[in-house]
Amino acid sequence: MGLSSLVYPGAHHTRFEHALGGMHLMQEAIRVLKKKEVSISDKEAESMQLAILLHDIGHGPFSHTTEATLAGIISHEEISLHIMNKLNEELKGALDVAIAIFTNQYHKKFMHQLIVGQIDLDRMDYLKRDSFYSGATEGNINSKRIIEMMAVVDDQLAFEEKCIYSIEKFLMARRLMYWQVYLHKTSISAEFLLVKILQRVRHCFENGISPSLSPALGFFMSQKIGKSDFSGEALENFLSLDDSDIIQGLKTWQYHDDFILSKMSKMLIERNLLKIKIQTYPFDPSEVDLKIELLKNYSFKESDYQNFVFTGSISNQTYVPLDKEILILLKNGKLTRLQEANPFFSSNELSQIQVKYYLCYPRNTNLS
Amino acid sequence: MGLSSLVYPGAHHTRFEHALGGMHLMQEAIRVLKKKEVSISDKEAESMQLAILLHDIGHGPFSHTTEATLAGIISHEEISLHIMNKLNEELKGALDVAIAIFTNQYHKKFMHQLIVGQIDLDRMDYLKRDSFYSGATEGNINSKRIIEMMAVVDDQLAFEEKCIYSIEKFLMARRLMYWQVYLHKTSISAEFLLVKILQRVRHCFENGISPSLSPALGFFMSQKIGKSDFSGEALENFLSLDDSDIIQGLKTWQYHDDFILSKMSKMLIERNLLKIKIQTYPFDPSEVDLKIELLKNYSFKESDYQNFVFTGSISNQTYVPLDKEILILLKNGKLTRLQEANPFFSSNELSQIQVKYYLCYPRNTNLS
Amino acid sequence: MGLSSLVYPGAHHTRFEHALGGMHLMQEAIRVLKKKEVSISDKEAESMQLAILLHDIGHGPFSHTTEATLAGIISHEEISLHIMNKLNEELKGALDVAIAIFTNQYHKKFMHQLIVGQIDLDRMDYLKRDSFYSGATEGNINSKRIIEMMAVVDDQLAFEEKCIYSIEKFLMARRLMYWQVYLHKTSISAEFLLVKILQRVRHCFENGISPSLSPALGFFMSQKIGKSDFSGEALENFLSLDDSDIIQGLKTWQYHDDFILSKMSKMLIERNLLKIKIQTYPFDPSEVDLKIELLKNYSFKESDYQNFVFTGSISNQTYVPLDKEILILLKNGKLTRLQEANPFFSSNELSQIQVKYYLCYPRNTNLS
Amino acid sequence: MGLSSLVYPGAHHTRFEHALGGMHLMQEAIRVLKKKEVSISDKEAESMQLAILLHDIGHGPFSHTTEATLAGIISHEEISLHIMNKLNEELKGALDVAIAIFTNQYHKKFMHQLIVGQIDLDRMDYLKRDSFYSGATEGNINSKRIIEMMAVVDDQLAFEEKCIYSIEKFLMARRLMYWQVYLHKTSISAEFLLVKILQRVRHCFENGISPSLSPALGFFMSQKIGKSDFSGEALENFLSLDDSDIIQGLKTWQYHDDFILSKMSKMLIERNLLKIKIQTYPFDPSEVDLKIELLKNYSFKESDYQNFVFTGSISNQTYVPLDKEILILLKNGKLTRLQEANPFFSSNELSQIQVKYYLCYPRNTNLS
Repeated sequence: MGLSSLVYPGAHHTRFEHALGGMHLMQEAIRVLKKKEVSISDKEAESMQLAILLHDIGHGPFSHTTEATLAGIISHEEISLHIMNKLNEELKGALDVAIAIFTNQYHKKFMHQLIVGQIDLDRMDYLKRDSFYSGATEGNINSKRIIEMMAVVDDQLAFEEKCIYSIEKFLMARRLMYWQVYLHKTSISAEFLLVKILQRVRHCFENGISPSLSPALGFFMSQKIGKSDFSGEALENFLSLDDSDIIQGLKTWQYHDDFILSKMSKMLIERNLLKIKIQTYPFDPSEVDLKIELLKNYSFKESDYQNFVFTGSISNQTYVPLDKEILILLKNGKLTRLQEANPFFSSNELSQIQVKYYLCYPRNTNLS
Repeated sequence: MGLSSLVYPGAHHTRFEHALGGMHLMQEAIRVLKKKEVSISDKEAESMQLAILLHDIGHGPFSHTTEATLAGIISHEEISLHIMNKLNEELKGALDVAIAIFTNQYHKKFMHQLIVGQIDLDRMDYLKRDSFYSGATEGNINSKRIIEMMAVVDDQLAFEEKCIYSIEKFLMARRLMYWQVYLHKTSISAEFLLVKILQRVRHCFENGISPSLSPALGFFMSQKIGKSDFSGEALENFLSLDDSDIIQGLKTWQYHDDFILSKMSKMLIERNLLKIKIQTYPFDPSEVDLKIELLKNYSFKESDYQNFVFTGSISNQTYVPLDKEILILLKNGKLTRLQEANPFFSSNELSQIQVKYYLCYPRNTNLS
Repeated sequence: MGLSSLVYPGAHHTRFEHALGGMHLMQEAIRVLKKKEVSISDKEAESMQLAILLHDIGHGPFSHTTEATLAGIISHEEISLHIMNKLNEELKGALDVAIAIFTNQYHKKFMHQLIVGQIDLDRMDYLKRDSFYSGATEGNINSKRIIEMMAVVDDQLAFEEKCIYSIEKFLMARRLMYWQVYLHKTSISAEFLLVKILQRVRHCFENGISPSLSPALGFFMSQKIGKSDFSGEALENFLSLDDSDIIQGLKTWQYHDDFILSKMSKMLIERNLLKIKIQTYPFDPSEVDLKIELLKNYSFKESDYQNFVFTGSISNQTYVPLDKEILILLKNGKLTRLQEANPFFSSNELSQIQVKYYLCYPRNTNLS
Repeated sequence: MGLSSLVYPGAHHTRFEHALGGMHLMQEAIRVLKKKEVSISDKEAESMQLAILLHDIGHGPFSHTTEATLAGIISHEEISLHIMNKLNEELKGALDVAIAIFTNQYHKKFMHQLIVGQIDLDRMDYLKRDSFYSGATEGNINSKRIIEMMAVVDDQLAFEEKCIYSIEKFLMARRLMYWQVYLHKTSISAEFLLVKILQRVRHCFENGISPSLSPALGFFMSQKIGKSDFSGEALENFLSLDDSDIIQGLKTWQYHDDFILSKMSKMLIERNLLKIKIQTYPFDPSEVDLKIELLKNYSFKESDYQNFVFTGSISNQTYVPLDKEILILLKNGKLTRLQEANPFFSSNELSQIQVKYYLCYPRNTNLS
């Protein structure tokens, strides 16, 4: 959950737990579907579990926060696939089916849909887990019941009609978790700060300064890794990274000569974050300028202002009507789309991408 | 919860527990509001607790199910008020303020709004309690947080802006509990049957037949009580009624000479309920006729058909924009209405009354 | 839970739920044992579930409270067996194996031990359920883990060594539930009162007075049923009894001419119970006499004093070393007894029957 | 919880959360005691909260595991006191009363007893928290009820008689958590390994080799800090340590030239732990020798054998009758000791220190 534990002190759960949880839900789903006479061979069952166990293995330290900064244009899904391929080589093809499922090349589409969809086991586990550990009980969902209601028609995943309210609840819970927890203003302020710090470290390297850091982190900070380079050495280094590389870096950088780097590192360690304002429409440039004005009292270069005053947008979409459809199996045996089974989801509001805008700026004490 | 325990075996909680729970939430709300410097005197605090403790005391056996049949046009709120007035006499005016709050005649409107509103402590307790005991975890709500976010502005109850997603969750949870639990097709089929049975008992009395029953139940079955009569004897009898009067009645009526009465009583006791079909548009009369056709094999009089085949509607409204507004206290200190603070609630879908239609009819085994 | 809901308002759960819960745990146990390659045929699995589903079906209204008064020397286990036999007849022998398991005549002893033992599924379900609904969280147990640790050696139920602390916890939780919940002083005061009331009703019948009651309850109050008579009519009447027969009786008896009966019924309905004092040694007769002295102001006959002042004992044993041994399967594959695997249970204290003595007597207001 | 998360993947909660939890329980205790008219001034209430908030602040990385290795003979309580004194200086005496309470020099003894006793708020929080996050539900306790039952007599903390079974449960839960969770064989095997690794790092420094590590960790590994030195620089370095210093160290040491250090670091990182055998009596030296024999195939010096084969003891005492007595307030207003109020605790078994012996040795794969 990135830096959410700065807001929700109990949210210290790890991606490893999430992987185990996803695998557990997959076992439940396989049990339910087999009871409904969906054909799943032992090899397929094993592969479905492996695919969800490994689906997130390409995440870097602090989850999504460092994704873009560390590995550039390579997404965590692509890195997961790199790692699976490597394991598959070592295991002499044991992951062939798991990889086909993960990359949606397996002919039984529902196996992929259980892992990547609008209502999949990945989301079920993380919503339940994040709601539990953060204490935001509003995000809890009834995964047990939704899984019991799963069905497979023509190799597509579908849900029995009588769980449409549980699905409604699921989509609403996800919406709530985004706005209330994942995009909590204090968390994102901390996460933006961490991103700015890593960008500054990279900037230092580009200018011939080498802040002290672990070899693995140094590998990614001192050069840009292209898609085609993400093998051998890069992968090896990526795999050895964890949160402690960043934390040790931050602790050292507090005392670095680069004022911007040391200031921002200290701010994050002391939880002395930038203020953040959120609204539903873009910020007027004059409001941004007003905040920049304040920086002029300090000895920053103008090009460094953007480390302390910046604006941007965050967004979320409750229900996506066209992509990865949620199929409902009616009592009469026919399939329909969620928005037709539950008029609630034909509402425009829910399928619109909801955008919010933020403005970050220093509080008086940050820069003193 | 009426006869919901036929569907959710754990749902045996009582109205007494709900009254205690409501009082507990009121204590929390008073603590929160006082900390925010809302003026509440000791007498007012006591009266707020008494008002919620007694607000549902006028409910009859099996809750809403028997309401119309037992006491006719007198609502349970009116009966609650009768009982409060009687207690107030005995207690020499100790309930004066509590009654003023309950009837919305007290000048501090928020005290009434805490008990009767779109987001009130009554609903908070029953949603949480019914969700807990039924196991429909989707209906759980974060009452603790919503109460923490309460405020009072100009004697009106309001909610701090940052809980708009908890409120969204609350309204969605209520919607879900209605469609999934309170209006569960099997529960309502059972509840309709109980209503038909009590109507039949009354019909027997009107025709000079007196099925065996407790004196208190007999009082209400053998005569119609008008609004003006609901004092002295009627109230005394009403107060002595509980579920066991109905259960004992049903057990006896199983063996009564009136075939309709005995058949229906046996059906309910043996959980051999009428089938029920639910849809979003009214039933075509020809479909109803088809079901009635089946009854012709039995020796019922035509006037009795309506005991076994009948249709009607149920409805629910997620959010009522105009009545009993939900007020949001913005960070800038201004008040606004929920639908303006959270665009989600400006959607037409949510404020429309959603209506469903049902058709009840016997399964083959019911009438054999 | 008898009348425990007078103390723990949430404790309204029913024996039906307990039966379903026991069956659910049996399904878990069967799943675990089969995975450990214990041979259990489909017929046996079905019969194990049936045996636990029906094991408590012979309980009367308010559970253990009315057992001795209603059915005299016939235990609820014997009645359960009567009912199973009757069902078995109707079902043409379908319960043969279930009955053999229930009566411990089946050669695979562990199947009986899962239902009747010191650590059985019956106790697991009721401890967990009663702890949950009463809110006495101290009585919660980890049934999931204990079941996972079950093993079968030579057709005997055993538990893997690594769960000895879960077993310790189980036995301690049971001990706690007895002293804190099941034998709570207010509950047992209420239960004694109910027993006294039923005895008084019987006394009335013996003296030619017939208090109004339901036919089924009348059947048991107006005559003594011997072991050999407990078939046909007696069983039929027993099966139609439930709590509502007692509640309706109490409500009527409040106004009965027999002063003792009406007084006691009113006391129970108004929760105006006898005071109760509990100590670890017998009460001195002089202390009892002192309480009886108070009754002399009232117009009771001396023979009626025992309705309002009486003494007796309650007891519980945490661990019974010799009977129904708890067997532990050591890592080296050998079996041993619990008290040898966990020295804690070799302590005398735990295997002693702990006895407490009570004295019930009226408070001033009871008899006014 | 040291390295327990290797066994219980959910046990990632932190000491910070524990400090907040302790403070929350203190607020509850203050509320309860004030309602019982125990005099507690605002300053005292604030100081009680500060004392528990800071009581554990002297813990190093991975909790108790590294305590002896890092700071030698200085206990974490002494370090907590050093830190409090330092804060007190900065805050100009604001912690005077908190420190007096923490060091038991305050005249109202109960304030200290709430933090350090056999049943204190510290233990309540960690038992509940560790049980919750590990999933060992057997360790859950009813802190709410025990706090409600607190009383103060002659400035001593006491517990009302009617909670003796909750106290029994508390002591038994603590016993269970020790044997089942805190002293889980896999956790302690991992923790012994970590201790051996840190000792090896120190050994390297003593032999002129300097494994790469963070400056703060280096400070403690490269010299022995005496009690009198634990100020200024030592404290500063101690405060900047966290788990990430150790984790980064381990990751680097995997590739160190010292074979023992690199081998052990790799073992811990790959969760390839030493085997561990636990029994209730000391290991026969011949059994230890047999395991050492296996090491002779490897190129270890004899003096290094003790890194891979070693034996020792762990212990726990359920109830300590003489020290820090648990006082019970009887209904008659007198005080007595727990073992007199509940005969269960007069048992010798419970007050004996229970000792177990362990033997660690490599599995075949560890050293390959």
